[in-house]
Amino acid sequence: MRYIDVAVLGATGAVGQKFITLLENHPWFRVREVVASSRSAGKRYREAVTWIQNAPIPETVAGLTVRSLEDTLESGVLFSGLDSVVAGDAEQSYAEQGYLVISNSRNHRMDPRVPLVIPEINPEHLRLVDLQPWRGAIVTNPNCSTMFLAMALAPLHRAFGLRAVQVTTLQALSGAGYPGLPALGVMGNVIPYIDGEEEKIETETLKILGEPGEYGVNPASVRVAAQCTRVPVVDGHTETVSVQLQQPATVEEVRSVMESFRGMPQIQGLPFAPRQPLWIFDAADRPQPARDLQVENGMATLVGRLRPCPVLDYRMVLLGHNTVRGAAGAAILNAETIVHLGYLKEGRFDRQGCVDEPAAAYCVGA
Amino acid sequence: MRYIDVAVLGATGAVGQKFITLLENHPWFRVREVVASSRSAGKRYREAVTWIQNAPIPETVAGLTVRSLEDTLESGVLFSGLDSVVAGDAEQSYAEQGYLVISNSRNHRMDPRVPLVIPEINPEHLRLVDLQPWRGAIVTNPNCSTMFLAMALAPLHRAFGLRAVQVTTLQALSGAGYPGLPALGVMGNVIPYIDGEEEKIETETLKILGEPGEYGVNPASVRVAAQCTRVPVVDGHTETVSVQLQQPATVEEVRSVMESFRGMPQIQGLPFAPRQPLWIFDAADRPQPARDLQVENGMATLVGRLRPCPVLDYRMVLLGHNTVRGAAGAAILNAETIVHLGYLKEGRFDRQGCVDEPAAAYCVGA
Amino acid sequence: MRYIDVAVLGATGAVGQKFITLLENHPWFRVREVVASSRSAGKRYREAVTWIQNAPIPETVAGLTVRSLEDTLESGVLFSGLDSVVAGDAEQSYAEQGYLVISNSRNHRMDPRVPLVIPEINPEHLRLVDLQPWRGAIVTNPNCSTMFLAMALAPLHRAFGLRAVQVTTLQALSGAGYPGLPALGVMGNVIPYIDGEEEKIETETLKILGEPGEYGVNPASVRVAAQCTRVPVVDGHTETVSVQLQQPATVEEVRSVMESFRGMPQIQGLPFAPRQPLWIFDAADRPQPARDLQVENGMATLVGRLRPCPVLDYRMVLLGHNTVRGAAGAAILNAETIVHLGYLKEGRFDRQGCVDEPAAAYCVGA
Amino acid sequence: MRYIDVAVLGATGAVGQKFITLLENHPWFRVREVVASSRSAGKRYREAVTWIQNAPIPETVAGLTVRSLEDTLESGVLFSGLDSVVAGDAEQSYAEQGYLVISNSRNHRMDPRVPLVIPEINPEHLRLVDLQPWRGAIVTNPNCSTMFLAMALAPLHRAFGLRAVQVTTLQALSGAGYPGLPALGVMGNVIPYIDGEEEKIETETLKILGEPGEYGVNPASVRVAAQCTRVPVVDGHTETVSVQLQQPATVEEVRSVMESFRGMPQIQGLPFAPRQPLWIFDAADRPQPARDLQVENGMATLVGRLRPCPVLDYRMVLLGHNTVRGAAGAAILNAETIVHLGYLKEGRFDRQGCVDEPAAAYCVGA
Repeated sequence: MRYIDVAVLGATGAVGQKFITLLENHPWFRVREVVASSRSAGKRYREAVTWIQNAPIPETVAGLTVRSLEDTLESGVLFSGLDSVVAGDAEQSYAEQGYLVISNSRNHRMDPRVPLVIPEINPEHLRLVDLQPWRGAIVTNPNCSTMFLAMALAPLHRAFGLRAVQVTTLQALSGAGYPGLPALGVMGNVIPYIDGEEEKIETETLKILGEPGEYGVNPASVRVAAQCTRVPVVDGHTETVSVQLQQPATVEEVRSVMESFRGMPQIQGLPFAPRQPLWIFDAADRPQPARDLQVENGMATLVGRLRPCPVLDYRMVLLGHNTVRGAAGAAILNAETIVHLGYLKEGRFDRQGCVDEPAAAYCVGA
Repeated sequence: MRYIDVAVLGATGAVGQKFITLLENHPWFRVREVVASSRSAGKRYREAVTWIQNAPIPETVAGLTVRSLEDTLESGVLFSGLDSVVAGDAEQSYAEQGYLVISNSRNHRMDPRVPLVIPEINPEHLRLVDLQPWRGAIVTNPNCSTMFLAMALAPLHRAFGLRAVQVTTLQALSGAGYPGLPALGVMGNVIPYIDGEEEKIETETLKILGEPGEYGVNPASVRVAAQCTRVPVVDGHTETVSVQLQQPATVEEVRSVMESFRGMPQIQGLPFAPRQPLWIFDAADRPQPARDLQVENGMATLVGRLRPCPVLDYRMVLLGHNTVRGAAGAAILNAETIVHLGYLKEGRFDRQGCVDEPAAAYCVGA
Repeated sequence: MRYIDVAVLGATGAVGQKFITLLENHPWFRVREVVASSRSAGKRYREAVTWIQNAPIPETVAGLTVRSLEDTLESGVLFSGLDSVVAGDAEQSYAEQGYLVISNSRNHRMDPRVPLVIPEINPEHLRLVDLQPWRGAIVTNPNCSTMFLAMALAPLHRAFGLRAVQVTTLQALSGAGYPGLPALGVMGNVIPYIDGEEEKIETETLKILGEPGEYGVNPASVRVAAQCTRVPVVDGHTETVSVQLQQPATVEEVRSVMESFRGMPQIQGLPFAPRQPLWIFDAADRPQPARDLQVENGMATLVGRLRPCPVLDYRMVLLGHNTVRGAAGAAILNAETIVHLGYLKEGRFDRQGCVDEPAAAYCVGA
Repeated sequence: MRYIDVAVLGATGAVGQKFITLLENHPWFRVREVVASSRSAGKRYREAVTWIQNAPIPETVAGLTVRSLEDTLESGVLFSGLDSVVAGDAEQSYAEQGYLVISNSRNHRMDPRVPLVIPEINPEHLRLVDLQPWRGAIVTNPNCSTMFLAMALAPLHRAFGLRAVQVTTLQALSGAGYPGLPALGVMGNVIPYIDGEEEKIETETLKILGEPGEYGVNPASVRVAAQCTRVPVVDGHTETVSVQLQQPATVEEVRSVMESFRGMPQIQGLPFAPRQPLWIFDAADRPQPARDLQVENGMATLVGRLRPCPVLDYRMVLLGHNTVRGAAGAAILNAETIVHLGYLKEGRFDRQGCVDEPAAAYCVGA
């Protein structure tokens, strides 16, 4: 198989760096271009970037010349880690030009024409690209905290129906990008507010769990309440969750549907798919960000302390790697899904590709 | 006024040290004796203690000879920061001998004969000491996380009635005592479990908000669900809270009853009383442990982000100084309350003292 | 005594905030004006500032209208915490207009006409203001790390002569101002470089220990080598130091001259003077930033582990509060010294004031 | 090649866990036995251990039954991470029984009969085992801080001769083992003392750089002064170093001998050998523990900020992974060296093995 050339948009930022790190040695994709602001354009990548990963810059990328958002790109697939200040216009412009934009930015997530996809949960939402008036397309993944919440909720919603969800997040610093928060603001501190985060969780979750309709997704009818905090942890979002179900279920049943949850990425064995999307921990004090983030190379959602809740029905603790499954890794798995479904032809987006193999088929048995 | 001599039990531990620090220059109480395990007994306090406060050991205490739990004490009032392994028996033994034990330990909190008191909320529970068969008495304050939760809930419960409460705590390291948790376990980490803590919050809160009856307290009929986590913060417990009310209330009404909440300590101007028990913050990102713990010298409960909740009725963030208002400071305010109510005669417990001035009177107007 | 009105330059920055915090309740000075960049000018201080202190903004300052660097000020004494990008020109301009600028900024420290003063060590350097061609004057205090080093070295240099000094610093985050360093850069990390810091230590120390001459200070003839690192500590610079002496001395003699070191601020009992400038710790694991910074309200230099060095003669560990004695507190003590020496007349700088009471007199007995 | 069976002594401790983690998939060695205190003996390893690594317990080890120090072992090679309280007697006893003990413990390091080996520097010291009166043998690696210092010093000493060395260490928490230091003692703090550490650096370094003689090693004649501190970093010891040379050298020459330094492990391509033992960084603010520890899988010594020193001749910053190259990885490389030199016969120590291939030969060209 020939490699599919991809470009990374916002390549010098934290998400862009993570794309580059995770795509090194990817079996299908090869980073051919890196795109950043005009301040960086024209420089070698290694000179333009303040590299904050703890593995060195991949040699094949370090020497690339940074391109600007105005340049025409050779690659057909663009991974976007663009800042939301520019992502809205830039991504649409790329889509108009025919590129497939796999975006981690928030700008288009709630656009009714744009799929907000977690391939284990709603690959059939990819059909929404038919509503997009552009030659190319935009496909998005959710906000980092939403990712782990939606992943834990999806099997419960399918099996028992969800009525209400309470979540408190304890989010890592890397979620704020780089430079992100000042050290003096967070050392030994908790910041009980993350701008826009609660709204994202409360709306994106419902779109992901919703049903695609003629004009977009009909959101799931679940009440979601989020309280978001920032804690002095480098990587790993922890979430305490309580859920109210529509149908009664025992704790064993709840555990069972979570543990056995599989989706298209698992069935098809996509390269970035965790073998098991939800890992259930028995030890009372797990999962922990400093111990457990490497499970499934950061692509799993970790569940602990599943037990009844005196106010709603069940409660639990979630943990996920916010910059892997919660950001760049999520986008890469989306791209793999799209490739697998046949939306690419010779490395470029082709709306007709997937006719014979509807994504929805993968969800039935899950 | 002559000083009331007090002893600190468990004087070398973290809570004991805080008692000693806070009691320096107290207008009513003077630390005359320090009591610790037999390993420390007989040494000078300054040699026996691994002092972890960031103010030096008060000179008047540093030179005291540490006494053992077997020694007869001169003081009539004992502040107990004893480890729960020994607190149960030791505190009862002291009560039998006629001492007034003001305990921060958990052992007797849920004993139906023992008042679990927050003077702003339920000073009338002090009457329970009449059920105690001992010459002396035991009076307790709640667990640190319960303190801030109960303080925020009390005015809501009185004004509107509470139906259900969800709380997630982000608790500081100092809450685990010293040496407490290993650094390698908590640096840049979240531990999603604190042994016994959720049960304490879920039961103590109901006792505090309950009504004293003939054989103990009838707990409040509120469903409380707690999820407790430990975060890498030195001091200051943060809590995200959602409440469901029995009667409808606007957010302004909710805010108003919290902000105007006053109790006996405020009315009587007790030395350790915060002028205002509940401080409401308007800035979206406050309160924060690294910024706001000094408000009211650590005796206030700080409230932020009061707003409607999509699942229950209202949600908010709480913060309090866990070793001050959440532990030693709470016990000291309990002691001040008891002194004020006339339970001491010449520095010793006297059950008859308070007949003419019932504590309950202070709660009516609050 | 009437208060002396002072202005704080760079009032919204980290140093400016510390000036405001420390000057609350100062017996001589009253903050009458706050000055910041044009972005803040015209706003109330409480709206213009991102307040990062853990005590609230003093009420008397919170309501002041922020002035710009172009405004004429009423105050005669200006405490400068200006960013070094603007401090050079702005401070000189103020001096030309007749103001007394007490600066914590680095720009003028090494100007041969500008005193670089630690009142315990070299108050006689204040005479250098006679070389300044301006109606007003500029007086500076050293860089934070230099402060503690110079304080420890001064008595050794006087008593035994210094030949060489090796110092490694472990500097706190607050030394980088606010916002300063990104959290992701320093959490659980050591940064082995602080731009310009080693040069400051290696030159400022020699000026402070030098002798004032006709055209400026003749620097002390000591070789100083510094290696500076940043560690994840909020406040408190730790320094490991080795010294080579010109004359032999026992460890007891070294300790004795350090412990008994006193200067003009102690002799005159200036408000911000520590009673004892150098505190010697005996415990092997002290001093520590999280334990000992409150000694002398942050105005002392703390010395631990004094012992022979196998390469040079003696080695030790230093600690000091970098934003108090290492910055704003140092400037305030400089201002107190200047006031005490008679350089102010009706709150304004008066070069003739100090004729009858030469600063140098205070150093003889020290 | 058949695997060589090895046992890990002190297998439940921090160093023992690291041995087990690093030996997973080792091409030569297979962990066949795990040995711990009698408290753990008889349990399955996964039940006996408080696992603190962030990769899961290797499956092949998790199910092993923990053996006690009294048990006879099948393996011929024992990796010792024993606590120094028991390591002295236990290791000698094993050596008497014929085992080859590759120890990371400090007890026997300075024994004149025991090689203290860094294979890049002094593999010829292995000859010292001939002085050991036991059937088996003990071979040690240095203290973690000494490792990186000695590695940086060795090429300088060979090329130019060393006269004096000053080092200040900023050591990570994992160096103190588990549970190690209490979180409340180190969060946001610097502890300026590590018991026994300075002595180890000052003596072990000289033994490593010394020449083996008839009765042991004649230590190198270099003055070494160390000041050791603990900083809130999880992994990675940083060291600031100044050196005085016997012969003049330019900074380019100094850099060149360090960068080109190779030893036997590199020449022979041993599995755990870093390709390049010393990495020189050009960026002023590197190396950093949070960024650079993964270089060469944690087996390299990282050097930054090489530049002249105003007091001695040159100064630099070192960084190394204290639990990999500074502990378990060092021991594994020692074992690989011994195997390569022919000291093992059918997996058991055989003193005659290495006659024909003297270790010293590898050092000549280095």
